[in-house]
Amino acid sequence: SQDFDIRGRVHMDAFIGLNNADDFQNGFNNRRARLGVNGQVIENWDGRIEVDFADGGVSPNDFRLRRRFSDGSRLWIGQYKVPQGLNELTSSNNITFIERATNSNMIADSRRMGLAYERFGRALGFKSMIFGRALGQRGDITGDMPLGGAFRGVFAPEIGSGRLHIGGSVVYESLMDQTIIGFSDRPEARDSGGGKSLIGLQINTPDLEGSFKSGLELALMHGPLSLEAEYLMVNVLMDEGDSPLFHGWHVQSNYVLTGESRAYSSGGFGTITPQNGRALEIAARFSHMNLNDSGYMGGKQSNLTLALNCYLASNLRFMANVIFVDISTRGNGTGDRTPVIGVLRSQFHF
Amino acid sequence: SQDFDIRGRVHMDAFIGLNNADDFQNGFNNRRARLGVNGQVIENWDGRIEVDFADGGVSPNDFRLRRRFSDGSRLWIGQYKVPQGLNELTSSNNITFIERATNSNMIADSRRMGLAYERFGRALGFKSMIFGRALGQRGDITGDMPLGGAFRGVFAPEIGSGRLHIGGSVVYESLMDQTIIGFSDRPEARDSGGGKSLIGLQINTPDLEGSFKSGLELALMHGPLSLEAEYLMVNVLMDEGDSPLFHGWHVQSNYVLTGESRAYSSGGFGTITPQNGRALEIAARFSHMNLNDSGYMGGKQSNLTLALNCYLASNLRFMANVIFVDISTRGNGTGDRTPVIGVLRSQFHF
Amino acid sequence: SQDFDIRGRVHMDAFIGLNNADDFQNGFNNRRARLGVNGQVIENWDGRIEVDFADGGVSPNDFRLRRRFSDGSRLWIGQYKVPQGLNELTSSNNITFIERATNSNMIADSRRMGLAYERFGRALGFKSMIFGRALGQRGDITGDMPLGGAFRGVFAPEIGSGRLHIGGSVVYESLMDQTIIGFSDRPEARDSGGGKSLIGLQINTPDLEGSFKSGLELALMHGPLSLEAEYLMVNVLMDEGDSPLFHGWHVQSNYVLTGESRAYSSGGFGTITPQNGRALEIAARFSHMNLNDSGYMGGKQSNLTLALNCYLASNLRFMANVIFVDISTRGNGTGDRTPVIGVLRSQFHF
Repeated sequence: SQDFDIRGRVHMDAFIGLNNADDFQNGFNNRRARLGVNGQVIENWDGRIEVDFADGGVSPNDFRLRRRFSDGSRLWIGQYKVPQGLNELTSSNNITFIERATNSNMIADSRRMGLAYERFGRALGFKSMIFGRALGQRGDITGDMPLGGAFRGVFAPEIGSGRLHIGGSVVYESLMDQTIIGFSDRPEARDSGGGKSLIGLQINTPDLEGSFKSGLELALMHGPLSLEAEYLMVNVLMDEGDSPLFHGWHVQSNYVLTGESRAYSSGGFGTITPQNGRALEIAARFSHMNLNDSGYMGGKQSNLTLALNCYLASNLRFMANVIFVDISTRGNGTGDRTPVIGVLRSQFHF
Repeated sequence: SQDFDIRGRVHMDAFIGLNNADDFQNGFNNRRARLGVNGQVIENWDGRIEVDFADGGVSPNDFRLRRRFSDGSRLWIGQYKVPQGLNELTSSNNITFIERATNSNMIADSRRMGLAYERFGRALGFKSMIFGRALGQRGDITGDMPLGGAFRGVFAPEIGSGRLHIGGSVVYESLMDQTIIGFSDRPEARDSGGGKSLIGLQINTPDLEGSFKSGLELALMHGPLSLEAEYLMVNVLMDEGDSPLFHGWHVQSNYVLTGESRAYSSGGFGTITPQNGRALEIAARFSHMNLNDSGYMGGKQSNLTLALNCYLASNLRFMANVIFVDISTRGNGTGDRTPVIGVLRSQFHF
Repeated sequence: SQDFDIRGRVHMDAFIGLNNADDFQNGFNNRRARLGVNGQVIENWDGRIEVDFADGGVSPNDFRLRRRFSDGSRLWIGQYKVPQGLNELTSSNNITFIERATNSNMIADSRRMGLAYERFGRALGFKSMIFGRALGQRGDITGDMPLGGAFRGVFAPEIGSGRLHIGGSVVYESLMDQTIIGFSDRPEARDSGGGKSLIGLQINTPDLEGSFKSGLELALMHGPLSLEAEYLMVNVLMDEGDSPLFHGWHVQSNYVLTGESRAYSSGGFGTITPQNGRALEIAARFSHMNLNDSGYMGGKQSNLTLALNCYLASNLRFMANVIFVDISTRGNGTGDRTPVIGVLRSQFHF
């Protein structure tokens, strides 16, 4: 019984519209408040349940069972993240900016139920998954559940005292009996109302067949410096008519002023552990998402984000972001928007 | 404080309609995902809170306080199961088939708030309870809460190296100000949409007074073999007019191929603990429920279920069921149905 | 990780209308069922998450991070109680009566998100807070979140073997873009339906600016005897027109028949720890709330409550209350009410 440990995280934000921010509600927001357990069921089998109670709601996170084989590979059963996207697969405890990049939010799937198999060696690794619907989507599904397959491969050799990361992923999903697919994103910030999307579209037609997504990841770490870039695209597949293709990318650079390095393992980033009581990190990111194609006009979003992070421990940090947003070419007749947003976060986990 | 332990369970299913299964949604389903704590408050007093987050919903399970007396008897305060029905009272971690038998689902009450007193000796035991509404039913109750009383007695002598179990129960409930009572059940399987009932009825009249339920239980265990049979009936009590009586039964047989026995204690079944790394169990069940009486035509359901269970530990198992369903004589004008259903489960608890 | 402990509480009630109680639903009620964790994040920083699943619902309680400085003062970040009101700030595990006094329920704020700073010395202490909306209020807020400030000071010298407590608090809140404010309360008891308010009013006008609340607290402890009195008022601030002022007060006296004393620390009451297996306490409270002013007629409520509490441990007690309620001068045309109510509680926490 008690090889299980409690786990949890609290991410508390304050949103401040700095300029052209009439679309948003200033104030506090509880971004994440998770409680769960994690532990060994029997030798080589571990399990996890984690629920997010952010702002008094309920959303299920990892509900999973996992087997480790003698060669280090692992079989996953239950709900967890679809293997696509370096930014998506980095834990919310460890992402550099307060929100993930818009291309990641918009295209990479989050958690789904299914079966996965992964194997990560010294420099090469992969994870593949067969997945269905997400937990909590029961009421939204018509007829049979969507069914998809995903594959992500990573090549991450050490280079001197640094490391290179190259990743690629493909995801195909049949939507089965569903006739709706949608994409939208907030400007990489959630306001006190929980977030407002400025770009987005919904495709609603019986011609809808599924989607094909692919991604490319590149990262370079050397001491306190790291660089990260990611490209993601989604091709909405139709039985008849045009199959629109939407895509986005982001580039970012982090520098830890106090000299520490970001942790890295199994194809993803970890956090920073301060060596002298406190670590300071600065970072900048440019992200872009284009939701316009084949007559669909969801809009374009480009964000420049500047970040200052203060780590008191690997599990306790304070964050400040300023986000310069540029929204254009939305098909709904509303004009362009250029809000400037500030967000503060205090965050701990255990 | 820390005489309390965390507890939880995850039951993950995959539903596959094998034949005549157009009524159902193929796909994954999260049947249970519970988190809770259990422990000693002070000497002789223990408490429990457990919440089910299955598929992202919230439903309360045991919320209780319990006192153990020096003679081994116990007083229960809070919410827990009404003492009726061998199948209902067997934990969902330990039931042989993926779902309980239809007579049990349809007639036996699940958890209610109230007071109970139990005493189980070597071969004789009983539990009695005064109960009201269930947790979470607040909004469904009109006027005063329903009030009921239950009594279950068990005679379970050891016979050689085996055991006999004979049980009987009666439950009376006054519905007080309520004017609606309903009965329905799924075909002993939940699809990806959370489950669809093929038989059912609702009685809605101010003449409604309450219900009287009784049950008979019979089980026999001998080494790897166990037999189990249960009869349950409910008499809906009316101030005026006919008082319909609905009833159902099931019989089942389990055989553990690897030789282990099912655990048994305090009037109910436990699980199987593999002696050599892995236990394999086969089982068959026939169940029947008749919801037709006195002009009410809820329908009849007969299910034959074949099961194969693989236990890697007492708290980790994989299950496969095939269910041959026969639905007939429904009064709503819809015809008969004979779906064949497959369900797979992976399950752990701690 | 595992400097975190689980915590929780279960408060189970039975409501019985004794006289003139047609407004209420007799039966059981689950008043609180909380699960959470509390612990040290790193040295001098502690965190807490706690969620209430009472009756199957979900409501967030403390979600917070706290820093202790070397002088004993503390900085709070997240959601927790606004510092106003002795009765409100006494934990629900430790309040003498089954519900708090009506003036406390009606006027003192409960939990809000914000920043607070507190310092409590031997006899003098204070806590101040800047606060916004509560967790879970996302959907109820129009435009920018309300913003408030609170200050509470306490003077609590030891006098011989006893203690005096004098407290005062002020809270100002700007409602920003909100145009509604409401006040209502149950008769210091929750029925099986979760509670029914007999007095209340709602003010809905764009003239609404905010509110100013102030409170005075007085308590005296000497051995098994304690006296407690509290006055609270709220002035609803309007840009134009009358700014109504509502107010209420309560006085109460506790006597522990078995001789123990109520615990006290940091400006609030703790519980009673039985010295010989069981402590018995009797108490009486008179409370009054006046919701009539400036043409607003929410009604008046006066309650006399008699209590008998039995403590088996500091974290396990049974409570019985009889409440004589007097409701009058409601502006909605309904007449006066004088229900007499009985409530029983069993309660444990860990």
